[in-house]
Amino acid sequence: MSARWKVLSSRKVYEAGGRFTVSIQRIKLPDGRIVKDYYQIWMPESAIIIARTAADKVVLCRQYRHGIGAVSLVAPAGTGEPGETTLQTAKRELLEETGYSGGKWRFLGDFALHANYGSGTVAVFLADGVKRTAEPVSDDLERTEVVLKSRREIAGAVKSREMVSMGTIASLSLAKYL
Amino acid sequence: MSARWKVLSSRKVYEAGGRFTVSIQRIKLPDGRIVKDYYQIWMPESAIIIARTAADKVVLCRQYRHGIGAVSLVAPAGTGEPGETTLQTAKRELLEETGYSGGKWRFLGDFALHANYGSGTVAVFLADGVKRTAEPVSDDLERTEVVLKSRREIAGAVKSREMVSMGTIASLSLAKYL
Repeated sequence: MSARWKVLSSRKVYEAGGRFTVSIQRIKLPDGRIVKDYYQIWMPESAIIIARTAADKVVLCRQYRHGIGAVSLVAPAGTGEPGETTLQTAKRELLEETGYSGGKWRFLGDFALHANYGSGTVAVFLADGVKRTAEPVSDDLERTEVVLKSRREIAGAVKSREMVSMGTIASLSLAKYL
Repeated sequence: MSARWKVLSSRKVYEAGGRFTVSIQRIKLPDGRIVKDYYQIWMPESAIIIARTAADKVVLCRQYRHGIGAVSLVAPAGTGEPGETTLQTAKRELLEETGYSGGKWRFLGDFALHANYGSGTVAVFLADGVKRTAEPVSDDLERTEVVLKSRREIAGAVKSREMVSMGTIASLSLAKYL
């Protein structure tokens, strides 16, 4: 099967205020062909959290997402701060965004948002038995409504198009909620 | 709930050779606050296809994906050519990448790869009862191995980390294969 591509050189061509960078790589394919301009989008690693309560409801956020241009139901998620492990990021984001914490945490794996562009590895966590312990303290631009959803309601949200984020859907599937 | 953000202006700041563009938007939030630099990554709409044979196997591609830096199991997918509907894109990509065609096609919805950045709406299709009718004709950089996977093998591929693309996992979940 195809072997790893060799990156001959890489130059940063755009830096988006610390959020992501665009690079152009010069690449040598396994068959010897040279690709002069393979674009990569680099984003910091992020964490997404499927958190369930003792009553088997999943803690989700109803939030305007500008990339979609609509209010959407998404799993809590966020990018890491300097020095954080992805587990620390996940716990911080869950608490900040929803006010829930505690429970037993399990790492479900690192996944790829864009297998071509390399933009953003996502560490998926399952938190089992979380409780509301604080008020959400979000400094996000979006106002967030924290909602608890059953398995059946989650399936309904996909059908009704209230849930359209592939990251959220994939994570719920990995956690066996879809 | 939060209303739609108002885009006051938008300027393209980077164009990646027709593959994607980066824009900075000036935005007015529902509460009146102004955000001066909200980044958006625009990518063409793409299609992803969960195609199953009469024997209930899913047609997948084992392919090196440079964004991951590894060989990965992904669903056939691709971006539209000028003038194509997403259904036409989906049928063309399936045939080109795998040599499979035919069957009954169903649109499962448009989904978002990145709910924040707007990068790339993905139209998900389920093709039921496809058959191998041609040789794959791929001009992709990656050599592709076409493989047929059962439900159980798909679950195994996620566990073994052979399948890590969130788009593929979400699409398989939408098609009830995960």
